[in-house]
Amino acid sequence: MTKIRLGMVGGGKDAFIGAVHRYAARLDGEFELVAGALSSTPKKARDSGLALGLDPTRCYGSFDEMAEREAARADGIEAVAIVTPNHVHGVAAAAFLRRGIHVICDKPLTATMEQAQELAQVADDSDALFILTHNYTGYPMIRQAREMIARGDLGKIRVVQVAYAQDWLADDTGGKQADWRTDPARAGLGGAVGDIGSHAHNLACFVSGLRVDSLAADLQSFVPGRAVDDNAHVMLRFEGGARGMLWCSQVAVGNENALSLKVYGETGGLEWAQEAPNVLWFTPFGAPKQLLTRSGAGASASANAVSRTPGGHPEGYLEAFANIYTEAAVAIRAAQKKRQISTVLPGMSEGLAGMQFIEVCVRSSLNDAAWTRLEY
Amino acid sequence: MTKIRLGMVGGGKDAFIGAVHRYAARLDGEFELVAGALSSTPKKARDSGLALGLDPTRCYGSFDEMAEREAARADGIEAVAIVTPNHVHGVAAAAFLRRGIHVICDKPLTATMEQAQELAQVADDSDALFILTHNYTGYPMIRQAREMIARGDLGKIRVVQVAYAQDWLADDTGGKQADWRTDPARAGLGGAVGDIGSHAHNLACFVSGLRVDSLAADLQSFVPGRAVDDNAHVMLRFEGGARGMLWCSQVAVGNENALSLKVYGETGGLEWAQEAPNVLWFTPFGAPKQLLTRSGAGASASANAVSRTPGGHPEGYLEAFANIYTEAAVAIRAAQKKRQISTVLPGMSEGLAGMQFIEVCVRSSLNDAAWTRLEY
Amino acid sequence: MTKIRLGMVGGGKDAFIGAVHRYAARLDGEFELVAGALSSTPKKARDSGLALGLDPTRCYGSFDEMAEREAARADGIEAVAIVTPNHVHGVAAAAFLRRGIHVICDKPLTATMEQAQELAQVADDSDALFILTHNYTGYPMIRQAREMIARGDLGKIRVVQVAYAQDWLADDTGGKQADWRTDPARAGLGGAVGDIGSHAHNLACFVSGLRVDSLAADLQSFVPGRAVDDNAHVMLRFEGGARGMLWCSQVAVGNENALSLKVYGETGGLEWAQEAPNVLWFTPFGAPKQLLTRSGAGASASANAVSRTPGGHPEGYLEAFANIYTEAAVAIRAAQKKRQISTVLPGMSEGLAGMQFIEVCVRSSLNDAAWTRLEY
Amino acid sequence: MTKIRLGMVGGGKDAFIGAVHRYAARLDGEFELVAGALSSTPKKARDSGLALGLDPTRCYGSFDEMAEREAARADGIEAVAIVTPNHVHGVAAAAFLRRGIHVICDKPLTATMEQAQELAQVADDSDALFILTHNYTGYPMIRQAREMIARGDLGKIRVVQVAYAQDWLADDTGGKQADWRTDPARAGLGGAVGDIGSHAHNLACFVSGLRVDSLAADLQSFVPGRAVDDNAHVMLRFEGGARGMLWCSQVAVGNENALSLKVYGETGGLEWAQEAPNVLWFTPFGAPKQLLTRSGAGASASANAVSRTPGGHPEGYLEAFANIYTEAAVAIRAAQKKRQISTVLPGMSEGLAGMQFIEVCVRSSLNDAAWTRLEY
Repeated sequence: MTKIRLGMVGGGKDAFIGAVHRYAARLDGEFELVAGALSSTPKKARDSGLALGLDPTRCYGSFDEMAEREAARADGIEAVAIVTPNHVHGVAAAAFLRRGIHVICDKPLTATMEQAQELAQVADDSDALFILTHNYTGYPMIRQAREMIARGDLGKIRVVQVAYAQDWLADDTGGKQADWRTDPARAGLGGAVGDIGSHAHNLACFVSGLRVDSLAADLQSFVPGRAVDDNAHVMLRFEGGARGMLWCSQVAVGNENALSLKVYGETGGLEWAQEAPNVLWFTPFGAPKQLLTRSGAGASASANAVSRTPGGHPEGYLEAFANIYTEAAVAIRAAQKKRQISTVLPGMSEGLAGMQFIEVCVRSSLNDAAWTRLEY
Repeated sequence: MTKIRLGMVGGGKDAFIGAVHRYAARLDGEFELVAGALSSTPKKARDSGLALGLDPTRCYGSFDEMAEREAARADGIEAVAIVTPNHVHGVAAAAFLRRGIHVICDKPLTATMEQAQELAQVADDSDALFILTHNYTGYPMIRQAREMIARGDLGKIRVVQVAYAQDWLADDTGGKQADWRTDPARAGLGGAVGDIGSHAHNLACFVSGLRVDSLAADLQSFVPGRAVDDNAHVMLRFEGGARGMLWCSQVAVGNENALSLKVYGETGGLEWAQEAPNVLWFTPFGAPKQLLTRSGAGASASANAVSRTPGGHPEGYLEAFANIYTEAAVAIRAAQKKRQISTVLPGMSEGLAGMQFIEVCVRSSLNDAAWTRLEY
Repeated sequence: MTKIRLGMVGGGKDAFIGAVHRYAARLDGEFELVAGALSSTPKKARDSGLALGLDPTRCYGSFDEMAEREAARADGIEAVAIVTPNHVHGVAAAAFLRRGIHVICDKPLTATMEQAQELAQVADDSDALFILTHNYTGYPMIRQAREMIARGDLGKIRVVQVAYAQDWLADDTGGKQADWRTDPARAGLGGAVGDIGSHAHNLACFVSGLRVDSLAADLQSFVPGRAVDDNAHVMLRFEGGARGMLWCSQVAVGNENALSLKVYGETGGLEWAQEAPNVLWFTPFGAPKQLLTRSGAGASASANAVSRTPGGHPEGYLEAFANIYTEAAVAIRAAQKKRQISTVLPGMSEGLAGMQFIEVCVRSSLNDAAWTRLEY
Repeated sequence: MTKIRLGMVGGGKDAFIGAVHRYAARLDGEFELVAGALSSTPKKARDSGLALGLDPTRCYGSFDEMAEREAARADGIEAVAIVTPNHVHGVAAAAFLRRGIHVICDKPLTATMEQAQELAQVADDSDALFILTHNYTGYPMIRQAREMIARGDLGKIRVVQVAYAQDWLADDTGGKQADWRTDPARAGLGGAVGDIGSHAHNLACFVSGLRVDSLAADLQSFVPGRAVDDNAHVMLRFEGGARGMLWCSQVAVGNENALSLKVYGETGGLEWAQEAPNVLWFTPFGAPKQLLTRSGAGASASANAVSRTPGGHPEGYLEAFANIYTEAAVAIRAAQKKRQISTVLPGMSEGLAGMQFIEVCVRSSLNDAAWTRLEY
């Protein structure tokens, strides 16, 4: 089985998420990075490509050039990873989708709802796949949580508590990552709600199997001069009557990447934390708490399907991210054979829901946290 | 030093909190229980009193009788603990305050705001002390958190996250405790918000040193037929610009008594959980997280003042509760000598704030979670 | 029911364990401290007694005087707590046992094996009870562990791992507690093995239901000039074939009072740690780990019998210690009525086993860690 | 930079550690697997190779054939991974070393000391590198612990506690992995001491910077019919006066892969656990405990050098294993250029020390746990 030929847009030197995508693409050996437009600065794009061992002729100065020239090659890329700042996602993804090249795009979908809708139209018109890397859905115990809820282990869901706390933006010392992620022109209207709140929203829905009907959001910018929110409090109303809270913050001193999810139903509860991802707490009402472990005695089929090592051999962030890539490979190979497959991979629909979430958070907050409906 | 003569209203057989008050009163040897109106059922009151070793002549059938007869004795009670359902707090406390007997009352203050205001008036007219057992403020590491924030270790406070989750009301199997705590006539309008949300609100304010200006609350009753809320989501706006979230639930399956508090400021963060009360996490921004332990190297003066054992010898719920009682003893002895003392003991002001919190939560929720101001 | 009249030997100002015994005696209201020989320095003895509210005529200058005069009173003490340095335990306990006064004595039994054997003879000749405060056996989840093992939840026991780590003697800065506990004349031959190793040995046997047949010990004195061990490594062979390891240390920097016990059998495992005493980990082989909680869904009868508060309301060191006192009260009242009762209270037999443990550790270590049998 | 051409011996279908080596080789993109003798069964070897995408002509039926034919190719493998049962390590590694092909070999070094010494001689005579995958040394926080101890953060080391507990051999249900790992002919004389005790020994030495002078070991076989130990208790004496304990078990029910290390010195202590590998507890004597996190504020240079993601994005077992491979790549490229480099990679010296450890454990245990010296 030959590897899928992959290109990358963004992800040059000093980038964070580009390197993560490359680890993820490499871990299971399903992809080979063969081309890149790794920076919007041509020299940096070329230097970054050479440092990664790319053929110099496939180090491009722009995604448009890459799309055009790769599409023309017999051995051109089959898929592309888009790992730029948010405002480039839409135009870059569209350039490849229009040429039938599958797209694996970082989240959130785009910087603005308009960009999102344009991209959705392009994707709709294309035979190529669009996959959005809501990577936290790739954790085995998250898959297990979803499976357990779907099969009724918790009964009807009542309450969802999700939080995503960081502290790296607690002051304004900046840096490359801080710069674009707090710039509305590049990141979009949402700051914390866009960067990490969208992950929290996605995870809550992925696991609970529920959609958010409406929300009430109170967004804050604590650091002086910051143009976007750096902390957000959101109350959620899910379809079917469940309620929830979502907190995301980039100023919560002492938190590195503290994404946590708690779901409570009529007959059971589940609790999970990203920084200890190999375990899932499960309590059937009236019985002792159980510590379910990845690849352990209580691990479910859907968790085992995305695990690589025995219990007690911790897997982490990169493995979860790689699960998205490897499922993308399966989907791409199926698409190449015109086969339909069932998949839980996040895609355009999740991307649009995420954009709705961000946009409605901002709108609700401007309206003094009034309940505001999400439109799907 | 002789012990303070203590009476008790409520707390007969099958009660929960009455026994807790008795442990708390006994641990440091500052009180001696000498009289009781332990139940509103006279026979049960008497049986319960005898079981506790009370003099039969001081086992009363009603608090009124106890107040009148004890006030007439030369060796009558100096203080009384009120541990009845909420709707009795006001009338019982008033009966003793009017006779100059100090009152130690369980929370919340009363079942209704009217009762609260009447009681406040009585307390105002009395020389006797009114102490409200917001017992979680008695934990040493909570004292330390308050001290650290007051002296500026966290800088200006930005975010307060407080949660109080239980699961004992996840179904409707009931029991004595469940019965009155979900009956609006006895508990008041608030269910979870009254029973545990009021603790969470009090703790957040006690530690942060901030008052809540306004809140937006979304209350739910998940168990069919329940007349009060059993889960509540609340967004908070504090004076001075800090924001917060408060979640309380009695249907969160897998949680026993999970009260937790997280406070984040410009330069540091603190995190504490009631079920592991001997430690306090402190992160100065940009430095490693520290695990501060009770009686340990990083313990502060205010924590040490209310600790009994060396580090690693865990203290718990009863010790924290006893700290309130022992500070009450200090305050009572001072009052008996007409001396003013400085104390952090919760009293009428905290009780009224708590009633405001409950009442405004219910009102905001009925008004679709509109922001509603608390009036102090 | 009147309180048991209690005296105390040792436990004056600056003492640690005396205050603990007083809290433990007070919590459940079963004892009243009425007399004391609280220090070997008469003035300090008297000052300490007055500070505790004792009648000046019952503040004695020596335990002999107290034994003689209290035995002569109609309202004399019924029981005495011995909380002196180890070398006084034997003579003090004997003075009371000979007069029919029940003894509650701190561990280890004595400073030397000779003292232990003499005391055992005295106890044997007395109708009074001798109770040894191996307080860690009083924790509810320790009771549950013992019950689960006794009823076969783990199958035949294979491995016992017990550790007791502290760091307060990591240097030689001393203090009153350090002084006597590292002085062989007062503490006995064992340093860490006597002070805390004896607790670890007792707990391992109490929970597993097994006796140690032989051991191989390697003792060290890391702090220059120290006359006793401050760290000890011990391999254990239990009757019936189980094996174990015991580590105790007072120089393990970062440990406050880290007593932990792990027991593994053919079909299950249990793990417990004193610094988080309200939970017990249980794994049935081949099934998920369970977190059993005090007063929780999985709590057993023997745990519930010694619990005071609902799950999630942490109990700690003093509550466990108080359980020993309250069971002592039950035993004393039964003895006063010449009734036999079944009890798990540690007494002379456990005291002698502990002395054997200490003495054999020292002997084995002097013999280059040769396997050495314990003789019961 | 082209990838290093890698072969593999062992690691066919149903193998565990072969797949791990392939993930490790792939993650950083430094190796390309191009040849294999993946099973001693020719058909399985070929099928396994094809499943991995190997060129059919490079799927060999034996390691000898592979060594001979690859050495003859211009594009032959530059390095080989040996992932067979232990008894094959020596002969296989020798076949490649003799032909100048670098060897990356799983631990322990061999099944017997004789095999080890023969292999050492071959390695000594070869210009090729011999690298032993003591993979736990690849964890960033283990690197940090080593660095902190080397620079004196703990002062002189006193005590080392290391434990490695599993439960997968708690009964005799077997399976492919169990079969060979409990067969002395294939695994060697050591069971648990060879399979996991050798890791624990290596880690303790790697971090502390100390060698074991002598040890006293008590080995057990709890499962009826088992020919090797499945639980071992070992007391350690290190050069320079430090002492330690090592416990390894494969019958400790409730433990998946619980490798933990605690090191205590005169002025500080460190604690680490493999199942939560991204954090390291550090306590300077007399100060609060610190939670040092990978890529966090307290992370050291040596930890950062082997980290891929920001703090809070957990790395795990495969990343640590990959660190060994990537450092092997650096060493191999340097060797190809005849350059000397400084490295902490485990190799022949660590392999021989491990064999000493295993052999001396068995010998000491047969001699009733007599202290026995390791000879280096």
